[in-house]
Amino acid sequence: MSDTHNEREQLLALRDRIDEIDATIGKLISERAGCAQKVAEVKSASTEGDVLFYRPEREAQVLRKAMERNEGPLSDEEMARLFREIMSACLALERPIKVAYLGPEGTFTQQAAQKHFGASAVAMPFSAIDEVFREVEAGAVNYGVVPVENSTEGVVSHTLDNFMNSNLKICGEVELRVHHNLMVSSVTDVKSISRIYSHGQSLAQCRKWLDAHYPKAERIAVSSNAEAARRLKGEWNAAAIAPEKAAELYDLQVVSEKIEDQPDNSTRFLIIGTQAVPASGVDKTSLLIAMRNQPGALHNLLAPFHAHDIDLTRVETRPSRSGVWTYVFFVDFTGHVDDPVIRATLDEVSARVSDLKILGSYPKAVL
Amino acid sequence: MSDTHNEREQLLALRDRIDEIDATIGKLISERAGCAQKVAEVKSASTEGDVLFYRPEREAQVLRKAMERNEGPLSDEEMARLFREIMSACLALERPIKVAYLGPEGTFTQQAAQKHFGASAVAMPFSAIDEVFREVEAGAVNYGVVPVENSTEGVVSHTLDNFMNSNLKICGEVELRVHHNLMVSSVTDVKSISRIYSHGQSLAQCRKWLDAHYPKAERIAVSSNAEAARRLKGEWNAAAIAPEKAAELYDLQVVSEKIEDQPDNSTRFLIIGTQAVPASGVDKTSLLIAMRNQPGALHNLLAPFHAHDIDLTRVETRPSRSGVWTYVFFVDFTGHVDDPVIRATLDEVSARVSDLKILGSYPKAVL
Repeated sequence: MSDTHNEREQLLALRDRIDEIDATIGKLISERAGCAQKVAEVKSASTEGDVLFYRPEREAQVLRKAMERNEGPLSDEEMARLFREIMSACLALERPIKVAYLGPEGTFTQQAAQKHFGASAVAMPFSAIDEVFREVEAGAVNYGVVPVENSTEGVVSHTLDNFMNSNLKICGEVELRVHHNLMVSSVTDVKSISRIYSHGQSLAQCRKWLDAHYPKAERIAVSSNAEAARRLKGEWNAAAIAPEKAAELYDLQVVSEKIEDQPDNSTRFLIIGTQAVPASGVDKTSLLIAMRNQPGALHNLLAPFHAHDIDLTRVETRPSRSGVWTYVFFVDFTGHVDDPVIRATLDEVSARVSDLKILGSYPKAVL
Repeated sequence: MSDTHNEREQLLALRDRIDEIDATIGKLISERAGCAQKVAEVKSASTEGDVLFYRPEREAQVLRKAMERNEGPLSDEEMARLFREIMSACLALERPIKVAYLGPEGTFTQQAAQKHFGASAVAMPFSAIDEVFREVEAGAVNYGVVPVENSTEGVVSHTLDNFMNSNLKICGEVELRVHHNLMVSSVTDVKSISRIYSHGQSLAQCRKWLDAHYPKAERIAVSSNAEAARRLKGEWNAAAIAPEKAAELYDLQVVSEKIEDQPDNSTRFLIIGTQAVPASGVDKTSLLIAMRNQPGALHNLLAPFHAHDIDLTRVETRPSRSGVWTYVFFVDFTGHVDDPVIRATLDEVSARVSDLKILGSYPKAVL
């Protein structure tokens, strides 16, 4: 009885403290929104021409600081997500950002748009990647969000091709991480697994691992990973490949974690816009390079990056549409074009190729 | 030159202040999360049996306070949304809430689940309403989210029917507001409108208004409201029915606002769970009442509510599955069963009917 009384006292004290904290947080969010309004006023009064309300490099810096300062117990990701939403709300107050994304609603690209711009942006779906480009080019929206690669399935070539005929800039990138896990119901002995359910794409992303560990199990593609997890109920010789939350939800046991063939199984998206983004401190640059297909061409092209110790994160080769024997390379590397070393490197590369176009320097994905 | 310099100074000062605010907000969010962890510890140590981490009535109170305290410039809705996410993150730290909702992903029901539980809950789609009920009953998830009414199209009868054979409680409600607007491109004269595009359901929800204002215009159902808005480009004699954000996005002019036939065109969802919810201060109660179909039965049933001045918000009649000439009524009213007046009223009603089941008292939708 006195224990219960004591507990109630403790709970009441904690709740009072939470209420106080909430009152202060509310006041600070209001003050922050007021500051954002003043920033907009100052910018609007500016005679400098282009008025930029949304600054990708500034947002990236705010999120990085929020994560650096975070001492728990929330994860850095959760803390950054909360700040993303606070910034999104403050920004929408002035001028809601308009975003076009590859639809339909409910897809990963919508998730990416929300992850990057927060819930307060005005985001609408378009049914093709070139429509998203066209909307941004026409100025109907401020930014577009398009998928550019899945680290297992490869690049979304249609997005890269669109850059060949577009003057849009890459203003940011978003990564959504997807891990696969093999899970079974509690009655299942791992040795008895003879059937593995999952979505077809997930089965493809774990193909090598399955070949190595369950070469004889039948692989059955179902409509979703959630459906795969559900099917296990009462099945003693089946497993499912699904994200961890499916195991939590269906009370399944994860017997093998992160079984995707590529350890960094993520889907990457690009933010496209019309403005170049200043350096945020941790940036990436994407190039489009056209050159004749001579022996050693690619090696020759990449040599200056190596010489200047610049970290190439990705090279893609696409056939050019403009001529026979000509190839186009998409090159991503760490750094910003405002950096003199990067600038010098690009000058060297430029001298070796038919054409070099800077698609954009932009903050590296924060989360 | 000095103007520009002055502006830069101002912007730097504002950014420094925003950085300070962010640092304090971050610290406070961390402290709040720490308090939430302590609450969980105290509750876990409790000998009282049921350990409830998620308290719908407490969440509703926190959100209402955040809105009351808000003095702008953010809207109350935006402020509450930010606090919803902060609570969601703090709660997920202890024990992520598991939620089943009527899928597929990307539907309004998923939006409702996210609006109510925030982005940190583990929410998964199920393909039928009775599956959502079954998952909650089986304890596989903590809560379910199901649609219960659209104020124009009527009730989702399948949800009501499920309560007849279930012991689940209603623990909360969520409303998503959807407004329709008639919009045209800048070249269009309103008098020349001869075609109106929209999604079929939106056309249905504005039928009377269209009959009255544009009786001769052809109504063309297309795949989505966004598609309807897009079609207007270059059409000089067409209009679209779509939400306001479509006008922003496609640079259209809204010529008539809120044209839905029911002024409160919203979609309502119920949160279902296994636990009764204590009073939050602003609550609703839902009843299921079975009675013989005698003359004046409904009037007789409702008389005690009238006598006690209780605000009935909704009455639905459904045929019972258990016998001929027997009907089942779903009744919603303002108030909580813990209130002695409500309790006395229900005792009176109880004496007049075959069966009365309290489906739940729960906080009125905050947003």
